[in-house]
Amino acid sequence: MATATLTIDLDALISNWRALDAQTEVKTAAVVKADGYGLGADRVARALMRAGVTKFFVAVAEEGAELRQAVGPKPEISVFAGHMSGDTDMISDMQLTPMLNSMDQIVRHFEALPAHPFGVQLDTGMNRLGLEEAEWAAVAQTVLARKPTLVMSHLACADDREHPMNPQQLATFRRLTDGITTPRSLAATGGILLGSDYHFDLTRPGVGLYGGLPFIEAAPVVALNVPVIQIRDVAKGESVGYSNTWIAPRDSRVATISAGYADGLIRAMGAGVDVFAEDAHCPVIGRVSMDLITVDITDLSETPKTVELLGQHQSVDSVADAAGTIGYEILTSLGARYYRRYKSV
Amino acid sequence: MATATLTIDLDALISNWRALDAQTEVKTAAVVKADGYGLGADRVARALMRAGVTKFFVAVAEEGAELRQAVGPKPEISVFAGHMSGDTDMISDMQLTPMLNSMDQIVRHFEALPAHPFGVQLDTGMNRLGLEEAEWAAVAQTVLARKPTLVMSHLACADDREHPMNPQQLATFRRLTDGITTPRSLAATGGILLGSDYHFDLTRPGVGLYGGLPFIEAAPVVALNVPVIQIRDVAKGESVGYSNTWIAPRDSRVATISAGYADGLIRAMGAGVDVFAEDAHCPVIGRVSMDLITVDITDLSETPKTVELLGQHQSVDSVADAAGTIGYEILTSLGARYYRRYKSV
Repeated sequence: MATATLTIDLDALISNWRALDAQTEVKTAAVVKADGYGLGADRVARALMRAGVTKFFVAVAEEGAELRQAVGPKPEISVFAGHMSGDTDMISDMQLTPMLNSMDQIVRHFEALPAHPFGVQLDTGMNRLGLEEAEWAAVAQTVLARKPTLVMSHLACADDREHPMNPQQLATFRRLTDGITTPRSLAATGGILLGSDYHFDLTRPGVGLYGGLPFIEAAPVVALNVPVIQIRDVAKGESVGYSNTWIAPRDSRVATISAGYADGLIRAMGAGVDVFAEDAHCPVIGRVSMDLITVDITDLSETPKTVELLGQHQSVDSVADAAGTIGYEILTSLGARYYRRYKSV
Repeated sequence: MATATLTIDLDALISNWRALDAQTEVKTAAVVKADGYGLGADRVARALMRAGVTKFFVAVAEEGAELRQAVGPKPEISVFAGHMSGDTDMISDMQLTPMLNSMDQIVRHFEALPAHPFGVQLDTGMNRLGLEEAEWAAVAQTVLARKPTLVMSHLACADDREHPMNPQQLATFRRLTDGITTPRSLAATGGILLGSDYHFDLTRPGVGLYGGLPFIEAAPVVALNVPVIQIRDVAKGESVGYSNTWIAPRDSRVATISAGYADGLIRAMGAGVDVFAEDAHCPVIGRVSMDLITVDITDLSETPKTVELLGQHQSVDSVADAAGTIGYEILTSLGARYYRRYKSV
């Protein structure tokens, strides 16, 4: 079989959630948007429920509706995009809790589903989602009287502990919400690591659960093993792959493995990524193509049948570094062609 | 609804296939690997069958097995990865035609399925897949006696018309295959455009069908319309998005739209990509986040409900340029969260 195997370690996921939960004195939810950061929202959420998670966040109502089918009626499912036009039936039928972002959404929600749970998202400086300060001043009293489940905001620079934007957003969030009795939330993974000032009543870790930075201690959750299709000898001076970008600097042995950018191994990664045969590393050479990658196995004593691209030897963040991006993107790009194996004791 | 709509124009797809077919005097197949370059192999292949395609190519046997379910027993389905260990039942039961790449694969196929159709892939310099010249010399007579369906190779630099690698691979392919009676194939989209010397008996267009370069005249096949979640005023000097990378150079209006890198709008694209409200273009500003993108709509006279990111105004190749990649990767990254609408007269 030329299909690579993506192994998703649900025990590692749970242990990451527990480790982040243990960093705070407050309730810990879980963000499972973008299909559980690419790992399968249904399996991920059911595993997290076993660990005690009772509250999930998704990006859009459609994700919430799918998640509801997977987790049953009990957990709370909150929707960051809020209550969009056309979402009313889904929100109502699937018991979703929209985080209302704008005056439009507040009006829509109160008119369409006056008794239905909701939260409020405030902008504290990221200028992406949430009510502006002046809007909140105008409606806070009315909105709070309807008892939202949560008042939340999102940090723009939490992955950088020293960024002055963090205390600035914290101060704004306090100014907008101090004194209210509604539960408050500001921190995702990065915010949890900024310390207790940022924790309020609920945290919402996402990337840290899945093994990504900025949670340095995270256990790796994904491993990717890719079959070797073919091995060949390449003489010094011969080229390999599209546009001849790699020229053999010595007589070499090259393995062609069966995964490529159509599987989320993004084309920009190129040089700088290795694959592993047992503990030996083999550099990726030439261009990543749609379904295939070529690697230099000259220094191996045995010919591998499969190689590891993600796992104990190389994290999503290492691959992201080589590609000039962030671990989040490597996770959410993991493709649909893999065999997905969920591992749990 | 905060879910974007990806419209796939099957008539444009068919017209691209016909235009590429018209460039040659020989038979034209279609490559539908990587789930039809991200557009849905089942729908794409059934549309192409209506236009007269009788032969498809996929990357791996598992894709072939799925495609067989979609297209029924008649079309030929060839597998670039060849006959891998563990594939025999799938190849046999699903009537797949492996393109054998190595001595290992030849032995495996002849032993396991001696009467089953197969093709042969030769390496002519790309050093990625296919038999080496010396291997072919050793087995050609035996293999050809078993009447393969096809002898093929693949060009490494066909997207660049002037690249000296093209005539070099052509000469090698001729040296390896001139005089045989088995049908031959060297050209994918780029090869078709290199002229009749490269056409042999069968061409195998892929990216050109889906509207991508190097087929400049291709009709656009995908359009992507993304809902606006929220509009806000941003004062001169305020920042937008993660890591505060965009600072408003004037008092601005910013729209947050509901799609991000988890939907394949790769994070590297950032500045340089526009979205369109009717014909007016609005620059993407700040970082692309997982589920959201922010755009500058200051110069619009009306507030849009949705904006177009791919379509008549901006091709997959323009977006790829801005992201430092190629249209192929934009296509195959198109995500699973979109509503997919297939358009055909």
